[in-house]
Parts: sequence; structure tokens; C-alpha cells
Amino acid sequence: MDTEKLQETIDRRREEFVDTLATLVAQPSISARDEGVAECAELLAQEMKDIGINSEILPTAGQPVVYGELKAEDPDAFTLLCYGHYDVQPPEPLELWESPPFEPDVRDGRMYGRGTGDNKGQLLAHVMAASAWLETAGAPPINLKFVFEGEEESGSPNLGDFVADNRDRLAADLVLISDGTMHPSGAPLISLGNRGVIGVTLKARGADRDNHSGNKGGVAPNPAWMLIHVLANTVDPSGRVLVEGFYDDVRPVTETDREIIARLPFDPVEFGATMGLPTVDMPKEEYYRKIMLEPYFNISGLLSGYTGPGSKTIIPAEAEVRIDIRTVVDQDFDDLVGKLRAHVAAIDPRVEVLVRGIGGMAPSRTPADHPSIPVIAGSVERARGREPFVNLSSGGSLPNAVWPRVLGVPHVGIPYANADENNHSPNENLDLGCFHMGIRTSAEVFAGLAEARAEGRI
Amino acid sequence: MDTEKLQETIDRRREEFVDTLATLVAQPSISARDEGVAECAELLAQEMKDIGINSEILPTAGQPVVYGELKAEDPDAFTLLCYGHYDVQPPEPLELWESPPFEPDVRDGRMYGRGTGDNKGQLLAHVMAASAWLETAGAPPINLKFVFEGEEESGSPNLGDFVADNRDRLAADLVLISDGTMHPSGAPLISLGNRGVIGVTLKARGADRDNHSGNKGGVAPNPAWMLIHVLANTVDPSGRVLVEGFYDDVRPVTETDREIIARLPFDPVEFGATMGLPTVDMPKEEYYRKIMLEPYFNISGLLSGYTGPGSKTIIPAEAEVRIDIRTVVDQDFDDLVGKLRAHVAAIDPRVEVLVRGIGGMAPSRTPADHPSIPVIAGSVERARGREPFVNLSSGGSLPNAVWPRVLGVPHVGIPYANADENNHSPNENLDLGCFHMGIRTSAEVFAGLAEARAEGRI
Repeated sequence: MDTEKLQETIDRRREEFVDTLATLVAQPSISARDEGVAECAELLAQEMKDIGINSEILPTAGQPVVYGELKAEDPDAFTLLCYGHYDVQPPEPLELWESPPFEPDVRDGRMYGRGTGDNKGQLLAHVMAASAWLETAGAPPINLKFVFEGEEESGSPNLGDFVADNRDRLAADLVLISDGTMHPSGAPLISLGNRGVIGVTLKARGADRDNHSGNKGGVAPNPAWMLIHVLANTVDPSGRVLVEGFYDDVRPVTETDREIIARLPFDPVEFGATMGLPTVDMPKEEYYRKIMLEPYFNISGLLSGYTGPGSKTIIPAEAEVRIDIRTVVDQDFDDLVGKLRAHVAAIDPRVEVLVRGIGGMAPSRTPADHPSIPVIAGSVERARGREPFVNLSSGGSLPNAVWPRVLGVPHVGIPYANADENNHSPNENLDLGCFHMGIRTSAEVFAGLAEARAEGRI
Repeated sequence: MDTEKLQETIDRRREEFVDTLATLVAQPSISARDEGVAECAELLAQEMKDIGINSEILPTAGQPVVYGELKAEDPDAFTLLCYGHYDVQPPEPLELWESPPFEPDVRDGRMYGRGTGDNKGQLLAHVMAASAWLETAGAPPINLKFVFEGEEESGSPNLGDFVADNRDRLAADLVLISDGTMHPSGAPLISLGNRGVIGVTLKARGADRDNHSGNKGGVAPNPAWMLIHVLANTVDPSGRVLVEGFYDDVRPVTETDREIIARLPFDPVEFGATMGLPTVDMPKEEYYRKIMLEPYFNISGLLSGYTGPGSKTIIPAEAEVRIDIRTVVDQDFDDLVGKLRAHVAAIDPRVEVLVRGIGGMAPSRTPADHPSIPVIAGSVERARGREPFVNLSSGGSLPNAVWPRVLGVPHVGIPYANADENNHSPNENLDLGCFHMGIRTSAEVFAGLAEARAEGRI
């Protein structure tokens, strides 16, 4: 498919697209305190209508979803659902901003303002690409659905129900998510998923009060020791989790996974520096496998007794450990929590397992051999002139799982923001070159998916 | 030996003894801030001289020792060294005292004032008993040496050197210490020793900073896990210490020890209540054995990462555990610290062992079959009309070890204060009945030791 004319259109309308972004950024939409969110939904829906996208505002139990559709001419066309969010983080502390957060200001080729990168600029890239297709070809080459939610920064509490309630309307072949940043080198990235997270607290209780460690040492129970023995029997020194059945649902690493990892950059010293270590103490494949494809049972906090200045010779009454389990597909929240409870109870019934945050966040990963991946990669390379890195999964947790779990559709991420976008921080910004390149990339992705469908590859 | 006349003398002089105590209590002697300590030493030495004890003030590198001697007529007489301390704890918070701490006030048969029970009243009991002997018999029946130090409440930093520098002068057959309280039931106690304490901190370090547990979980080292595996391999779930050679120097439990334990009171529910537990979950012999005759490896504090409100999903940069090891005779500080260091280094060299408080406090215990013990017990029973409980050792730590270690002399404790003396607290008090009974007891102990020496039993 020849996209030259399309890209020329995008280049010609560059300033118009920037103005549209500025208008959207100027409208606060802070979901954490319900400030301007409804107004922003109206504005975004209007901007979409203005360029010919059939859009509407759909209610949820929380903030509304701005929904839009564009149909391809071919009734058998591929359907892509573009997900984004128009709500933003609170801008505080205001005094650290060089220009006011809701007065978008362009300096040195970047637009500064809350939400420029996260996520207004990135969601608009899809809209602008669709607009360029409308102008150039009268219709996009694939069916497009746009789901822009208004409470991602508040944890997407209603997205699952919204998708479940609108399954037919949202039916699609693939979900495209543009959020987050490209590789620090500026190289393009494709992201296939994320680890999940389960937060649990283990609490051990001894006596009703602290006891004197001299007078009672040996006869009063010490909950710190209880906790230590439970923990030492839950994860071995190599990090292997000893809970029975913990790894049952972990997908095996495929040859494709290994090939993709082999193409990723790896500099042990540079990577170590990002963690505050002299070097990464493991080979490249193990490093990426551990972050992307393996669960991790983390201790984020440990507390018992007295640890202030001086000393208190006590047997503590309580001990607590905070754990976040980073899960991978297809590990399930209820299944793992149940197994952990049984495991802990069998070692020491005095140690209680408390779940923090019902349901956690689920892992999700589109298999690397999914046929759309090489198509997407090819489109990104065509737009950027450079082969993208493929992230099998981010180590952290994102709300991707709703797509395969509720809608039954795989997802793929192509982040468009510059690595120093300062999202969630003062002076959030979007490099306008990245914004423009994002629009070009989305336009190429639409073309690539249409071509692959026509050729029966997807 | 007929002590009837002696006891009559003590009864007759009861008010005079109370007045002497009041004079001593009225003189502040707060070693923690060097307030009135030298004046109190002068006053005590003068009180001793007034009743015919050859006393003097001996310097140390810190506060002076008030030393006194009285010789028996018999050149082969037994020599008893009575140890006590004339310094006191700071009285704060003053607003909680019902009468000013240095204005001794007698109410309901008790004298209220800082230092009444800890330790001015108890050390004076020995002096008063000697005075009664002087009046009644012209000399005590045994040689008496008095060592009253002025910085026990500051940790006795110079007592060891003082004893070492005065070995010949202090030569004795037995050291008598009256400090602490009788059994809550009012029953008399004999205390044969104490556990020691070694304070260590184990510190594990991972990266130079906290890392995001999602982005780095699995590839950044987690010091909390390092610490847990070191600890789990240091003490087993039953409390048994796994450090090689840890128990090498622990004295075996003797038949005499078991007999003494068998005579101690034990009510699992009542004892549990003192710890905040529904009951003590072990048999009597195990309970006393564990507190008195076995070491305990305690965790008093555990800290890593974030444990405040909300949550932080981090891999902590550091983890720390504070340990106090309660040692028993003949465990040695340097030996145990060395073994622990080697043990930890062998498990995980990233975990550092830091010693808190050089030298710790040493365990000390006079064997229960030492010939003076039944003599002392007999004297106490004669004075009190009731057989004393024998504590093989207190679970906590006291500075007793100087006597066997530096002077080569065993020690025995006979606490005289009421269980609710409130030492170290506001409204410290001494039941004047207990004070009087203490004087009678010391007088009987002098008699009993003389008799036993005459009969060749000691």
C-alpha cells in the first residue's frame, strides 16, 4: 500500500494537529478530584466529530468513555480498537512548573503541559492518523474504534464493566495502546504486555504486648521469628517460589521469545547504573526472562519491634511483611492467593495472610508469535526507518488484561512519548517530533494491518 | 548461733535506721548527670563511720566507691563482700511524684523517694545489720567488706577496673548483692545469677537506592530476602541456634538445678498473663530452663523498605535486623561474636554483622550446689520464717560477672525490696517492713555464714 500521499497530508497538517492537542491539553481533566473531566470528554468528542469521526459519550459508573467509530469500505476489513485515556494526573506541585500546567506552551520543539504525553498527545495520534486517512482516501483502510477513558489515572475502576457491557460494540481484532515512552535511545518500541501484581501483607502475632527480651526471652513467642521462617520457606535464596503449584500457569518460554530477547540491547554496566548497582549480575537472556516472563515475589516492607535510635530489648508483639507478587500470564489472582494462604497456614497458622487491593492487577501478554506482531513491527519500521525493539512484557503492571480477558482480543502497545516526558511530574511534555512521528506511525499501522488482512496474513 | 538478742536490737533501733535511710535518700545522687553523687558518697561514708565501720572513699575513673571494712574477731573468719550502689536514676517526670523525689515521705508504712528501694535502702540493710552486730557482740561474726559504687545506674563502666585494681583489698569468700524485688507473693528469693546480653545488628545491602519492584523485580537484589535467609539459617523454628559451636560453653543442667526448679511456683495462666498470653505453652521445667539456663537469640527490631500508610512497591536498598543474644554461662562475648560473623559470612557475605555496645554484659551464675547456698537459704528462712525460692538466674542481664571473672568470687543475691517498689519510675518506694526485714535477714546471713564456717561447711 502506497502511503506517500498520506504522509504528505500528515506533514502538511502538522501545525493544525499541534493546535488541536493544545486545545485538549488546555482543558483540565483531573480524575483524582473530578476536575474538568466531563468538560474534557465533551471537548474530545467534539474534536473527533470535527474531523469526521462518529463519536459519542458513553456513561460508566464513574467518568464517561469517549467512544468513536470509523468504518472501512471493505466489509471484511480488520478492526482495530485504539485505547487511550483523556484524564490526567494532578499537576501539583505547581511551583515546579516552568509554565502553567494547563496553559500549553511550546519551547524547543516540545509542548509543555499536564497530559501532553500521558495521554492526550498519544491518543490524538490515532485520531489524527484517521483524519489523514479520511482526507486522503475518504475512509480508513481498516475499521477503527476509539475507546478513550476518563479515569485511568485513578486505576481504571470501571473499565472492565464498561467493556463487558459493550462487548458487541467493541468487538475488534486487536487493541492498540499508545502510552508510556520509547526507548531512551529514541528507538521505537512495541510492547506486548505487562506483569500483574498482587499485594499481600503477612502478619504474625505473638503476645498481646511487647515483652522484655531478658525476662521472657525463650518463653514468649517472637512473631519476627515466625515470619522469618514462613518467608524462608516461601521463597528460596535463588528467588524460586516454594508455594505448591505457584508456577503451574506460567507460560513456557518459546523459541520466538528467545529470538526477540536476543535482539534487545543489553549493557550490564549501563543497566546496572539505572538500578544503583555497579553491574547487572546475570546474562542478558536471564535478565530479560526474569523481568518479562517470570513472576517475582517481592518484599517491599518489613517491620517488627523497635528500630529507632538507641535500642529496646523487646520481644515484639507483632511482625509484618508487605509483599507484592509480580505475576505473569496465565497466573490467576484467586488461584495464587488461595495457594499462598494454604502454604502459610501449613507452615505456621499464627501468620495471617491479608490481601491488599482486591483483585490486584492481572498480567497480560500477547504471544510474540501472534500474526499481527510482525505486521505492526513492519509498519513501525516503515514509519520510523528503524526496526523497533519488542518488549515481550513490561516488568511493571498496567491495565491491559481487560482486553483479552473481557473482550477476548489481544493488545499491542506502541508508545509514542519521548523518554523524558516527565509524566506524573512537573513540566510534563511531549516532543512535537515524537507527536508527529506518532501520527505517521498510526497511519502506517492502519495501512499495514489492511494490507496484511488483504493478503490473508491476519 | 543465738541471734535473739541481735534481732531485739534491730527491732529496738528500727526508727533510727529509718531516719538514717531518710537522710541518705534526701541527698540526690544522679550519676546520669553527675548531680550530688560526690556529696552522697561523703554522706554515706560518714553514716558508716558513725556506726563504727572503717570507711573511706576510693576513686575510680568515674564516680567514687564508698568502701568499708569490719573485721571479725576470728582471724579465720569467713569474708563477705556486700555490694550495692548509692547512685540513683533521674527522677523525671517530676509531675507524677506524689511527694518530691528527694524529700523522703513515709505514707502507709512505705518511704517514698528516689533511691529508697534502688538501692539505698537495700545497701543500708547490710550496714545496719553490721551495726547491730557491733552493738550486740562488739564485732560481726564474719569479716565484712562493703563496696558501694556510684555509677551502677550508668552501667557500672568502671567497676571492673576498680575491682581489678583492688583485688587484694577486696579478697572475699562470697559477694552478697541486695537489689531488685522479692517475689510478688512476698516470698523471699535468692538469686544466683543472670543471663548476659550481646547486641548485634545485621545489615543487608542491595542496590544504592530503592528500585521499582515491577520494573526491576527479579533482577535487582533484595536485601530483605538476603536477611531472611541468613536469619532462617541462624535459628531454627524451635529457637535452636544453628551457629556452629554456639552451645559449646553452655553448662549442662544439673540434678540440683532440676530440684531447685521443681520447688519454684508455676501457674501457666498467671504467668501467661504477665506476658499478654492466655497461658504459658510449655511445662514448668522447660519454662524455667529456657529463661534461666538457656541462651535466647532474640529479634528486637526488623526494618526494611516502606511500611507506612498506603504502599510503595519497591525493592528496598537496605534491610536491618536488631538482635540481642541472651547468653548463659560460660558463653563468651568475643567467642560468640566471632562464630556469628563466620556463620553469616558463610551464608551471605553481603550481610554485615555490627556489634552494638562493646563487650555486652556477661552472663554469670553461681552454681546451685555451691556450699554457701544452703547456708544463705537457711539464714533467710530463719529471718523470714519461710523458705526462699531460689532463682538459678534471672533472665535479664545484670553486672554480676565482675565478681567471679575479676575477683574470682561467687555471688549471691537476696533482694529486699517490695515487688511494687517502682524503681526507675515515679513514686519509688520501699516498704519499711521490707527494709526492717532486710536488716534482720542480713544479720542472720552473717550469723549463718559464721556458723557454717565454724562447722567447716564453707
